[in-house]
Amino acid sequence: MKIRPLADRVVIQMLEAEEKTKSGIILTGTAKEQPQIAEVVEVGPGGVVDGKEIKMEVEKGNKVLFSKYAGTEVKVEGEEYIILRQSDILAVVE
Amino acid sequence: MKIRPLADRVVIQMLEAEEKTKSGIILTGTAKEQPQIAEVVEVGPGGVVDGKEIKMEVEKGNKVLFSKYAGTEVKVEGEEYIILRQSDILAVVE
Amino acid sequence: MKIRPLADRVVIQMLEAEEKTKSGIILTGTAKEQPQIAEVVEVGPGGVVDGKEIKMEVEKGNKVLFSKYAGTEVKVEGEEYIILRQSDILAVVE
Amino acid sequence: MKIRPLADRVVIQMLEAEEKTKSGIILTGTAKEQPQIAEVVEVGPGGVVDGKEIKMEVEKGNKVLFSKYAGTEVKVEGEEYIILRQSDILAVVE
Amino acid sequence: MKIRPLADRVVIQMLEAEEKTKSGIILTGTAKEQPQIAEVVEVGPGGVVDGKEIKMEVEKGNKVLFSKYAGTEVKVEGEEYIILRQSDILAVVE
Amino acid sequence: MKIRPLADRVVIQMLEAEEKTKSGIILTGTAKEQPQIAEVVEVGPGGVVDGKEIKMEVEKGNKVLFSKYAGTEVKVEGEEYIILRQSDILAVVE
Amino acid sequence: MKIRPLADRVVIQMLEAEEKTKSGIILTGTAKEQPQIAEVVEVGPGGVVDGKEIKMEVEKGNKVLFSKYAGTEVKVEGEEYIILRQSDILAVVE
Repeated sequence: MKIRPLADRVVIQMLEAEEKTKSGIILTGTAKEQPQIAEVVEVGPGGVVDGKEIKMEVEKGNKVLFSKYAGTEVKVEGEEYIILRQSDILAVVE
Repeated sequence: MKIRPLADRVVIQMLEAEEKTKSGIILTGTAKEQPQIAEVVEVGPGGVVDGKEIKMEVEKGNKVLFSKYAGTEVKVEGEEYIILRQSDILAVVE
Repeated sequence: MKIRPLADRVVIQMLEAEEKTKSGIILTGTAKEQPQIAEVVEVGPGGVVDGKEIKMEVEKGNKVLFSKYAGTEVKVEGEEYIILRQSDILAVVE
Repeated sequence: MKIRPLADRVVIQMLEAEEKTKSGIILTGTAKEQPQIAEVVEVGPGGVVDGKEIKMEVEKGNKVLFSKYAGTEVKVEGEEYIILRQSDILAVVE
Repeated sequence: MKIRPLADRVVIQMLEAEEKTKSGIILTGTAKEQPQIAEVVEVGPGGVVDGKEIKMEVEKGNKVLFSKYAGTEVKVEGEEYIILRQSDILAVVE
Repeated sequence: MKIRPLADRVVIQMLEAEEKTKSGIILTGTAKEQPQIAEVVEVGPGGVVDGKEIKMEVEKGNKVLFSKYAGTEVKVEGEEYIILRQSDILAVVE
Repeated sequence: MKIRPLADRVVIQMLEAEEKTKSGIILTGTAKEQPQIAEVVEVGPGGVVDGKEIKMEVEKGNKVLFSKYAGTEVKVEGEEYIILRQSDILAVVE
């Protein structure tokens, strides 16, 4: 089974806490908005979204920072994913 | 009797709970927004919507994930449907 | 006397409860938004609305589903009508 | 003295209750928005408004239906008028 | 000293109550929005405002009707003025 | 040290109360919005801002009227400045 | 490890209080919005963002003033950063 996101949407999966510690990324907590790190598992086709040409800039396997309140959580075959728009991804961590 | 959606609207029908379990998709509950899975039963013609050319990307029979608070529920000849815009569909599950 | 709607507006008239039952359409009640069924009695000319070319897709006699909170109610010569924009019509029922 | 409306604005004057009864138009009261009937007394020149070409579709003498909460009331030489945008006019009654 | 308004702004000055009575314009009070009459004393150059070409339609000396809550009040050399955008002017009274 | 504003931003500095009195400008207090007078000390380059070409119309040394709630206050080397967009400047006083 | 911001985003790092004092920049506190000073550490590629061509105007090493409530805080390998859009940067301090 595969989740195929539409338009400029991206499917990501949270990295486990241990992985975060290993990778040296610790997210600070603020009252306003908590960033999170996740791995990209599926990328939509992009194309014309809301009348504007969107080119996808992230790819499968990228580690990304995104805003906590962005996107929608889903659970498929026991795995949890988040589906969000590419514009809700802040940065790629390399 | 047939529901013919206008513009970029799509008519979907919720999958039964048993089907969801069979298909291995379980949706997590969040306070913010609960995604749902449904099957596409009718697809609007697309075309120019709000002055922008919309191409329909989903088709009859697709299983789709969508946001709970999107769309309008209707009941026709005893069957319940939801009518929403294609842009409220997050992903196709294959 | 005739109501001639401007721009992309459509004049519709609610179907009686009996008719709805006969036609097999029952509308579910949700806290959020209740769809309704009505018959189209007048259609505006379309054209350029808010700087965008609008083509009218519904015609007199169409049975349509629309959102309850859309439009404005008027009573002319004892008959009640609703005037709404075409974009507030969800689907045509055939 | 004359009120010359700017851009896509229209000056209208409410019809007296008696006239409404004569003309057979009775407006239903809803909690949300009460439509009203009035006669057009002045029409703005249209042209480019908010960067969009607006063509005036109503003319002096037209009886029009409009939303109660649209427009601004003024009193000139003892007469009450309402100034609103053409887009707040729902329909012409003929 | 002179106030030179930028872009599509207009400087107006309220007419005295006596003048209003003489001119026969009485403004009705509504809970929503009170129109007012004033004389235009300075007109901005217009041009491209928010990416749209604005042509100034009012001129010095025009008596104009405008919405009470539009604009900003200033006092220069003992005189009170209001600075507002041309789009907040409803009509010219002639 | 110099503040170089980006895009269509302008750096201004409030005129002292004495100067205002000398220049004959007194600002009236309203509950809604209090205009203020200041001197322009730095002007951004303009150019394409939010996809629109912005031409800067104010220059260093101009006395300007602006809305109190516009912009952000900063203090550099003991001097207080306000950084705002040119569109928040109402008028130049000459 | 490196944070690569997407689109028109910029990664900045707050200057220490001592540095601010040395550089002579003191930020005033207002109830509305507190500006802050930081150093640019990474700059996104710009390009087409929301259908508009964005050219990046800041570069690594620039000292910038920005609005406190803009952006998202992250902590990578013990260092705290803020990721914001270039349009949330008010000015470069030179």
